[in-house]
Amino acid sequence: MDAIEREILFNRARSWVLQAGKLIRDRMDDPLTVSIKSNPKDLVTELDKEIEYFFATNIKRFYPDHLLLGEEGYGDTTINKKKTVWIVDPIDGTMNFIHQKQNFAIAIGIYNRGIGEIGYIYDVMNNMLYSALRNNGAYRNNIKLPPLSHNKLLLKESMVSFSHRWLIKNKFINEKIMQQLVHDVRGVRAYGSAALGFARVAEGALQAYITMNLEPWDIAAGQIIVNEVGGLTTDITGGAIQFLENSSVITAHPFVHDLLVSTYLKKAIK
Amino acid sequence: MDAIEREILFNRARSWVLQAGKLIRDRMDDPLTVSIKSNPKDLVTELDKEIEYFFATNIKRFYPDHLLLGEEGYGDTTINKKKTVWIVDPIDGTMNFIHQKQNFAIAIGIYNRGIGEIGYIYDVMNNMLYSALRNNGAYRNNIKLPPLSHNKLLLKESMVSFSHRWLIKNKFINEKIMQQLVHDVRGVRAYGSAALGFARVAEGALQAYITMNLEPWDIAAGQIIVNEVGGLTTDITGGAIQFLENSSVITAHPFVHDLLVSTYLKKAIK
Repeated sequence: MDAIEREILFNRARSWVLQAGKLIRDRMDDPLTVSIKSNPKDLVTELDKEIEYFFATNIKRFYPDHLLLGEEGYGDTTINKKKTVWIVDPIDGTMNFIHQKQNFAIAIGIYNRGIGEIGYIYDVMNNMLYSALRNNGAYRNNIKLPPLSHNKLLLKESMVSFSHRWLIKNKFINEKIMQQLVHDVRGVRAYGSAALGFARVAEGALQAYITMNLEPWDIAAGQIIVNEVGGLTTDITGGAIQFLENSSVITAHPFVHDLLVSTYLKKAIK
Repeated sequence: MDAIEREILFNRARSWVLQAGKLIRDRMDDPLTVSIKSNPKDLVTELDKEIEYFFATNIKRFYPDHLLLGEEGYGDTTINKKKTVWIVDPIDGTMNFIHQKQNFAIAIGIYNRGIGEIGYIYDVMNNMLYSALRNNGAYRNNIKLPPLSHNKLLLKESMVSFSHRWLIKNKFINEKIMQQLVHDVRGVRAYGSAALGFARVAEGALQAYITMNLEPWDIAAGQIIVNEVGGLTTDITGGAIQFLENSSVITAHPFVHDLLVSTYLKKAIK
């Protein structure tokens, strides 16, 4: 992919993301049909499916050689990792979407030969678009996000985000160590959207977002955006996240990342 | 206070809240002087003080017979509960204000003879103003908020908000029972602003917000607004919150309120 193609792709994806956001806002007050997926906390609506279909048809029309990995079933069934792959979460934070009508995002990562080139996270109701083009920095709407400070930050000066579930008995992580972490940081938040967790790390509103089991479409966009401001995204042992694989995730300010992994998460993993 | 006086007071307070919000947004990017109050998690900035001073001077000029109870020291030292009392939190969610530059609010409750007449919660960065005038309903910007449904809601269909701190050993509540609650509800969130917790209950985005130790200025505005949509606000045993006293708080959809108090909180209190 040459620079001009990449730029056109970046702009086209932006226009589709904004159009998809408008579709969601226009349909926001229609009655929702909610279905349960793997468990009662894993929900999907018709609108999730419609938005993914919107991307699928546009991608196939303009980029017939690109592949789509999507959450809701309109993607390609086999993915050749050497091609250009769109990784789409039409509505990240579906529970917030259903219950709150806010605090959810459209997330799109575009990878070429496994390298993240373009990332979009669109906080639809706040009309806040986070974007990144590899090696060109990250933006919130039209404002360039400053690089995350490389100053040494203390944990007690840091705000982190993770689910309350990691403080109770669970199969992924030792809850006692996570409880100690609550003591040691300045504040803990839980917003219910992985994509917005990444976005808040990128903009410096959180120093870390930690979670135990994300799917590729929860990670793809955010990883590219956080990378462009100098943040680190790995699994919770500090290892690289494998392209297109499920993973635990810590995305963080680089100094806080290393503190959290070495002092807490490595010891806590089950 | 007659109806016309009350209406004028409501409009004047609105105008001051919006002006104060603009002051904050204009000063947002100035360097902040942060001071520690009772402990390292209890912070205050010069801007907190300036905003309270802004209210204090306006109130004294237009309503010399009104009293002010404020967080930052510009209020009256003794409060005659039979008078009209403005209860002001210039920046609720100071930690979010400092670290995130978002997710904080101005909160104003106006009480006459101990009865909440007027409430404002202003989500400054999202320019979202929640308001209530007793017996006239609650509004989000200019849209009237619908009454909270009196349908029986199951806990597993409910979203609640409380701090991660109530899941670790603490002096207020049995953390084991709160851990059980995490299991039993659909989702748990933590936003770091009491006022915005009340606002989200009022708009139906959360079914309950629970916290262990609030001061009067954290409660005053929210209680009036939630009341106007038919929500309940009590201490965590279900008892009335005493005017101008610190208290634990549950503010919730009425059906969820009773479930949470009777099944969890009453048993969990220390």
